[in-house]
This record gives sequence, C-alpha cells and structure tokens, in this order.
Amino acid sequence: MPDRDTVLAELFSALSVGSFSTAADVLNQYAVDQGPVLDLQQPMAVVFPRSVAEVQTVVKWAARHQVVLIPRGAGTGVSGGAHATAGSVVLSLERMNRILEIHPEDEVAVVEPGVVNADLNAAVEPFGLMYAPDPASYRLSTIGGNVATNAGGLRCAKYGVTRDSLLALDVVLADGSLIHTGHRTFKGVAGFDLTGLFTGSEGVLGIVVGATVRLKYLPVQTRTLAVFFEDFRTAAAGVLAVGRARVQPAIMELLDGASLADIDARMDSALRSRGGALLLIQTDGLAADLEAAEVVRAVAGLGGRVFDEDPEEAARLLELRRHSRGMDADLETRVGEDVAVPRSRLVDYIAATEELALRQQVNVRVVAHAGDGNLHPTFWIAEADPNGIRRLNDALDESVEIALSMGGTITGEHGVGQFKLRWLGLEQSPELIGLQRRIKELFDPQGIFNPGKAV
Amino acid sequence: MPDRDTVLAELFSALSVGSFSTAADVLNQYAVDQGPVLDLQQPMAVVFPRSVAEVQTVVKWAARHQVVLIPRGAGTGVSGGAHATAGSVVLSLERMNRILEIHPEDEVAVVEPGVVNADLNAAVEPFGLMYAPDPASYRLSTIGGNVATNAGGLRCAKYGVTRDSLLALDVVLADGSLIHTGHRTFKGVAGFDLTGLFTGSEGVLGIVVGATVRLKYLPVQTRTLAVFFEDFRTAAAGVLAVGRARVQPAIMELLDGASLADIDARMDSALRSRGGALLLIQTDGLAADLEAAEVVRAVAGLGGRVFDEDPEEAARLLELRRHSRGMDADLETRVGEDVAVPRSRLVDYIAATEELALRQQVNVRVVAHAGDGNLHPTFWIAEADPNGIRRLNDALDESVEIALSMGGTITGEHGVGQFKLRWLGLEQSPELIGLQRRIKELFDPQGIFNPGKAV
Ligand SMILES: Cc1cc2nc3c(=O)[nH]c(=O)nc-3n(C[C@H](O)[C@H](O)[C@H](O)COP(=O)(O)OP(=O)(O)OC[C@H]3O[C@@H](n4cnc5c(N)ncnc54)[C@H](O)[C@@H]3O)c2cc1C
Ligand SMILES: Cc1cc2nc3c(=O)[nH]c(=O)nc-3n(C[C@H](O)[C@H](O)[C@H](O)COP(=O)(O)OP(=O)(O)OC[C@H]3O[C@@H](n4cnc5c(N)ncnc54)[C@H](O)[C@@H]3O)c2cc1C
Repeated sequence: MPDRDTVLAELFSALSVGSFSTAADVLNQYAVDQGPVLDLQQPMAVVFPRSVAEVQTVVKWAARHQVVLIPRGAGTGVSGGAHATAGSVVLSLERMNRILEIHPEDEVAVVEPGVVNADLNAAVEPFGLMYAPDPASYRLSTIGGNVATNAGGLRCAKYGVTRDSLLALDVVLADGSLIHTGHRTFKGVAGFDLTGLFTGSEGVLGIVVGATVRLKYLPVQTRTLAVFFEDFRTAAAGVLAVGRARVQPAIMELLDGASLADIDARMDSALRSRGGALLLIQTDGLAADLEAAEVVRAVAGLGGRVFDEDPEEAARLLELRRHSRGMDADLETRVGEDVAVPRSRLVDYIAATEELALRQQVNVRVVAHAGDGNLHPTFWIAEADPNGIRRLNDALDESVEIALSMGGTITGEHGVGQFKLRWLGLEQSPELIGLQRRIKELFDPQGIFNPGKAV
Repeated sequence: MPDRDTVLAELFSALSVGSFSTAADVLNQYAVDQGPVLDLQQPMAVVFPRSVAEVQTVVKWAARHQVVLIPRGAGTGVSGGAHATAGSVVLSLERMNRILEIHPEDEVAVVEPGVVNADLNAAVEPFGLMYAPDPASYRLSTIGGNVATNAGGLRCAKYGVTRDSLLALDVVLADGSLIHTGHRTFKGVAGFDLTGLFTGSEGVLGIVVGATVRLKYLPVQTRTLAVFFEDFRTAAAGVLAVGRARVQPAIMELLDGASLADIDARMDSALRSRGGALLLIQTDGLAADLEAAEVVRAVAGLGGRVFDEDPEEAARLLELRRHSRGMDADLETRVGEDVAVPRSRLVDYIAATEELALRQQVNVRVVAHAGDGNLHPTFWIAEADPNGIRRLNDALDESVEIALSMGGTITGEHGVGQFKLRWLGLEQSPELIGLQRRIKELFDPQGIFNPGKAV
C-alpha cells in the first residue's frame, strides 16, 4: 500500500496549481464548520476544484485509494456536517462560484455549487426576480450547501424551502461519474425524484456540482410589522390568529424576551423595552397593505402593540433577527438547537422548555421561524465546568424529546450532520434508518462521501 | 409449486369476505386505467383491502409466491401505470377512504390512500382551508394515486404539485413491512427525503397506505378572467406578459381554437366564436382584484379581449376546461400527450407541433397549464387504418422529441407508466436510468410491485 504522501502527491499532480493545500492554518480553518465539535480532527488536505472535471478527478482518486471526502460549501453549517474526520480530504466547492445562466422569461437560473446565496439574489434582482430560500446565513452560505442541507430561511413559510425552488441537479457520484437529475421545466415527473433525494442528503450520496433553480417574482412591495407582546405565549397565540385570518405572511419570526435582550446588548438596539416577545411579520406583493391590515386586526385582541416599520427600520429589524444567533460557532458552553413542532404546539413547547431550563439551571433564549413551527432555542451556561456541561447536554436531550413528544422533529432545517446523530433513532424507526443506510450503501459502497453524517 | 388456484385461495382465506374478486366483469374493469393500451392483459384477481394490516397481508403473500401486484387508486391515470400485466393481482386502495384527522390549527390532514381528492377538499373547506393540488380529475382520483403520480393540476403554478403539499407517508414495502417517512411539521430534514422518493414513483417502490398533507388557506376571494386572443401564439405571449407584470395567478390555462371548438361541440358552449385561443386566468387572495387589474393591463397590448367572469360563469368555464380532454380513455385513434417546456418556448412548441400535424396528416388540439409550461396536445385520426395509426405514432414520437429539443420533459404530470417508457431513454442518460433501476431493485428485489412501469 502506498504511503499517505505518495497518495496525496498523485492527487495534487492531477490538479491545477493553487487548487490544493496542506498548510497547517488551512487545515485548521477547514477542519470544522460552525456546529458543536465533539471530536476535533484535521483533514490531510483541502482541495479547491474549479470545474466539474476537477471534482471528478478528486472523486475518482478518492475511490481508488478509499480516501474519505468531506464536501464543503462555506462551512456555515451548524450540525457538524462539514466537520473533517481523521485521514479525510476536504472537498471545498467555494471556487466553483459562477452563475452560468439567468433566463428571466423561463424564470430559471443555472449555477455552480459555490455561488453564494446573496450573490444569486443580487444577480436576478434587476429582472424583478428572486431566489426565494433565504437562510439567515444567506450572505455567506452557498447554493451547494443550501441544497445539501435543504436549507430553510425567513420567507419559507410562504415560498418554501430549498427543495421547492430546485428543478435539476448535476451530481458527481462515488465512482466519479456525472449525472443530471430533474428538468428545467417547473414540472416534470419522469423517473424517480432523485433531485429531491440528493437535496438535504448532507453530502453523503453525491457531490452537487450544479443546480438549476426556479426563480420567483420579487414582490412589488413589502410591509413589515413589528408586533410586541407581553410574553412569548401570547405571541405564539398571535401566530395562530394570523392563520385564522387566512393570511400567509412572507415572514413571521418570533423572538422571546431573552433574545431581544441579547440582541440589544450586542447590537445597540432597544427592543426588549418595547415588549416581552416580538412577532416580526412581513407581508408582500400587491396585497401587502391589505394583508398587513388583516394582521393588525388579528393580533389586536391579544394586546399586541403594533409598530408599522418604515422600510429602513424594517430592514434593520430583519437584520437584527438574522444576527440573533450571533455569528460565532457553537461553543462548549452554548448550543443552538433547531427543532420543529406542529404550529399549535409552539406555546406548549416554550412552556416545557422554560420549565426544563429552570430545573436544569441552564439559560435559554428562543427565536422561531414561527410560520412553520421551526424553533431555534439556544441553551447556555456561564462556565465550562463538567457539571454545567452535563446539565447543558441533559437540557439539549430533553428539549429534543419534548419536540418529538409533540409530533415534532429533531431538525427543522439545519440537518443531522454529526451532532444530531444521537437523536435520529428517537425520531425514526430502525426499519427506516436501515433503509436509508442501504440507500447510502447503494450510492457509495466504499463509504468515501462524508461517512458518519446524516444517517 | 402450488397451482394458481391454491395460491389465490391462500390469499382469499386471509382477507375478509367481499374484499376480493375474480369475477370476469371485475377483472375486465380493473385491467386498465385510462391510458393507451398496448397489450391488454387481465389480472388473476382484484383485492380491496380496508386496512394497512390487510395490505401487508397481501404484500407478504405476493412476496412469498412472487406474484406481481398492480397498485391502483381510481384508475384515472393516463399513462397505463395501473394497467394489469399477465398473472398479476390488482391491489385497489379505493376502500381505504377514511379521512383520519383534520387539524385546522396545524393546517394538516391525515388520510387513507383511497380518499378522493374532492372529498378531502370538501372536508377541509369549512375550516377555511384547502388541499391545493387539484388535477382536473379531482372528483375521481385518489390521494394515493395523486401521490404515486405526483399529480399536478390547475392551480399548481402558484400552489405547487402534490409533492409540495405532502409532509409524511405511510408505506408498505416489498417485504410487507410498514414505514413512516417524513414529519408532521411543515419543515424537517432528518434523514433522506424518502417522502419525495415515493412521490411520483408510480407504485413501483412501495404501496402508499397513508398520507399526512399540509393544507393551505382557502383564498378569501378569487377573480376569473377569460382572455380571448387571435391565436395561440399571441395567447402564449400573454403568459409571458403576465410574468413580466410579476403577477403569479393561481390558475393560468391556455386552450387553442380546436380545443374550444371541441368543447363547444360536446358541452353546448360558444367559446370558439369569441376568439382563436383562450387564456383562462384566476387570481386569488386579498390581492385578487389588484392582480386582475395588472393582468388586464399586461395583455392589453396583445389585443386580448378580456371577459371578466361572474363567479358562476367562471366556475362553468373552469369546469369546461377540466372536461377539455373528454372523460373517455385514450383510444387507438386518439392519444393525449403531456409534455412540458420552459415557458419561453410555449410558442415555439406550438408552431412546431402544428407544422408536424399538417405534415403527418393528423389532427391536433392543445390545452396547457400555461403557468408552468405543461402542454397537453391531443392527437387524433379519423379512422383506425394501419397507415393512420403509424402516422399517429410518428406524430407522438415527434412531438415528444420537439419538447425535449427545447429543454422540456416527456411528462409534466401524468407519469411514465407503461405508455411513455419508450421515450424515457431520450430524456435520461443510461447512467441515470441504471441508477434508478438499482434503486428499484433495492426496494423490490423480487420485482413484485408494478414491474415494467416508470423506469
Ligand atoms: C448565522 C447563521 C444563520 C443560519 N441560518 C440558517 C437558516 O435560517 N436556515 C437554515 O436552513 N440554515 C441556517 N444556517 C445553517 C447553514 O448556514 C446552512 O445549513 C447552509 O445551507 C450551509 O451552507 P454552506 O455553504 O455553509 O454549507 P457547509 O456548511 O459547508 O456544508 C453543509 C453540509 O452540506 C454538505 N455540502 C456542502 N456543499 C456541498 C456540495 N456541493 N455537494 C454535496 N454536499 C455539500 C457538507 O458536507 C455539509 O454536510 C445558519 C448558519 C449560521 C452560521
Ligand atoms: C379527465 C382526466 C383529467 C386529468 N387531469 C389531470 C391533471 O390535471 N393533472 C394530473 O397530474 N393528472 C391528471 N389526470 C391523470 C390522473 O387523474 C392522475 O394521474 C391521478 O393522480 C391518478 O389518480 P388515481 O387515483 O386515479 O390513480 P391510478 O390511475 O389508479 O394510479 C396511478 C398510478 O399510481 C399507482 N398507485 C395508485 N395508488 C397507489 C398507492 N396507494 N400506492 C402506490 N401506488 C399507487 C398506480 O399503480 C399507477 O401507477 C387526469 C386524468 C383524467 C382521466
């Protein structure tokens, strides 16, 4: 068996100059994403292909030598899906960042995987179009990473998650071959939905090297309402009241008092003083004003104090919401969660979580994509003493179990990655997990794509 | 090896009385769906399970004796996906037709597979909700059949196809085991998207025995405009003009002059006299009026004559559109097609199709779900002489090739079934088809689920 240096040398000789690195600082930087780190490992190397052919070269090499590849976009994932494992090579797609086509009449764009979400949106805006899925990380995260995690975002209650805007994918399989799934048309049902199967598969089935996306109309107008409530409970009732009014806002974000206070402390805002919980609602399109009026009517009975924001202040508030998790990676002492529950249970989930935080003596604050019941509680402790870490972990376990007991899921949009694997068996049956493992084996018999993640 | 009667007797003894039949007229009735028949075959028997357990009994029996099962909902499919094959047993889900749960606050319903689409919509309407996917066959077709074909419909340009309203599925696998895929929450990314993989898989991967669906808000208001144009070409330009106005209608159906004349002849209407092509547009929600006004403005420049329909006349027009294909099965002399093209190519597709019909001396009329580029041309000949049948088939082949050459697909919503298998290799690469066959083998190693269909 050739030694590690010989094997790497074979790879590097097949790639263009500058498209690989083994420098210590680079290995360090690409060892982890923003998720909690359970077992820090450095990769052997990082490669930065610039073309589909180069990706195929890397994958064929990995298959030949049974080297593990860790696909990576911008590394903003928060479940450890892009954490390196021992002896692995990180396959960064960030330099494949060209927008290959924008077709305004077809309402379609074709992009390389490394295109940053915000860049695509900026490019289609002049045509009155948008790429709808907007994770709060949209200024950094890549379309390839969004596809691999089936990312959600702020406006997905109305416009859907990443899957709903995807038409076709180009994927490099574990033998280095290239397939094209799906269709350029909005509808198409020939064969199985492999586009959907790769979406959210967290890099364990294939490498996404291209995406054809459906664009939506950029709303001609938006209206943003900040509705402050006494407490989270009442704000959650507000979510259901808006639903009863049959209004589908583009954005409906919920922030609890602790989150408001945290933002105030970091961002020099003054939100907490306006109320104990904030429902941030954006309506859009020609009906933006009419829908906003319905929202105001709907929340009136619940004592909601409505601030009708001018566009600049609205943009600022949304920006504050996007920063609510902070831009730092999870720490040993602070972990952000990502459960989802049926909407009617938002209130119950919060009550149970507040109770458990008190009992476990951990701190908690919560933001939620409330329109679709997707909650991001952040749990933290003051100091990293062993006892505190145990309590923090118990709290995480319990909060996930609470969500499951309410008919919820362990991950609404962040993915299972490495960090959430311990809970997958609580949500899915052994039969279902077994079936998914067999699918993984079918696609990647040698286990070279991101092993130990997702399933 | 036990003989056929013994094998069937074993099955029947395990089922409740009245839930199976071998009567000649029943076998006849369940031998085919509404698609073209290439090779008429009668099943050995038809079974009508009433519970998940009974479905499991049937599947385990089939696995034991390697008998082919043909899953079937209402049999309204038009690609021969539910055609029986020699020695098969038809597994009709039509008696599993209970709505198990409607949860208005969660905006979720749980149904058995045999529930008819229209029945579900009627049941949720009192809550101000709708089940959005509405194939023109919605009064007959079942949710299970809609799932298995990933059915589209009239309002799917705005509200999405069946997949977009599905949250979770209960599926009986080829070994008789039962799995539950997906989640009850609007979002959830734990594991692979098996819900999506089963959706549109045409009964070849598993039997859908339950579905959890997301409901949407029933629009508080709708406006229906009938815009008559000089010809199809101008009407297709109207579709793009509406897009440029950034209005997303709920419905945007296009009917050519021949379709209008055909409807007039059958339904005692007088559409053809109003124009050479009809764009039937429905806007909905609080902005229905505002959007309708934008539509009127958008089509004005193209000479569109706008009829603003009162609700009753609008409902009648939509009903006429739903009957545009006729309620009869395809005949040897008349075949309805189902391609889709990128929206900008609607005009080109029509021009090329008209040219080919003239050249091949066949008749053609076209309706389209124009909002998503999904075209249903119907080709027919006057008499079933061999030469005519050949010309008809050549025309079908050519029309499919035209769609593909424009970046389109061989099937926008009807599925590949049995009838469209001959074109699948034109759309998809051997690698892609090979991968799908391996998935089929993984799920159904003995090939007992609907063999010779879909892939
Ligand atoms: C501040 C902040 C806010 C966030 N907000 C949201 C939010 O609102 N909604 C949301 O859903 N997520 C959110 N996230 C999580 C994260 O941004 C998303 O998961 C995003 O989709 C990851 O994209 P990325 O390019 O950074 O991918 P990475 O983190 O690099 O990778 C993510 C996963 O995808 C795989 N992968 C990456 N690229 C490819 C490829 N081309 N082919 C195959 N596999 C690949 C990786 O192996 C890994 O498993 C947030 C994260 C942060 C830090
Ligand atoms: C007048 C008319 C109008 C139509 N309009 C539309 C339209 O607008 N949009 C559209 O998409 N289609 C349309 N169709 C086609 C058809 O109605 C749809 O494909 C529908 O989804 C089929 O439902 P079904 O219950 O009749 O299924 P069937 O025809 O019985 O079966 C369809 C396929 O699904 C499989 N299947 C059925 N039930 C199950 C199950 N429980 N588990 C696993 N597999 C199953 C069958 O094996 C078969 O392959 C139309 C058909 C007609 C006759």
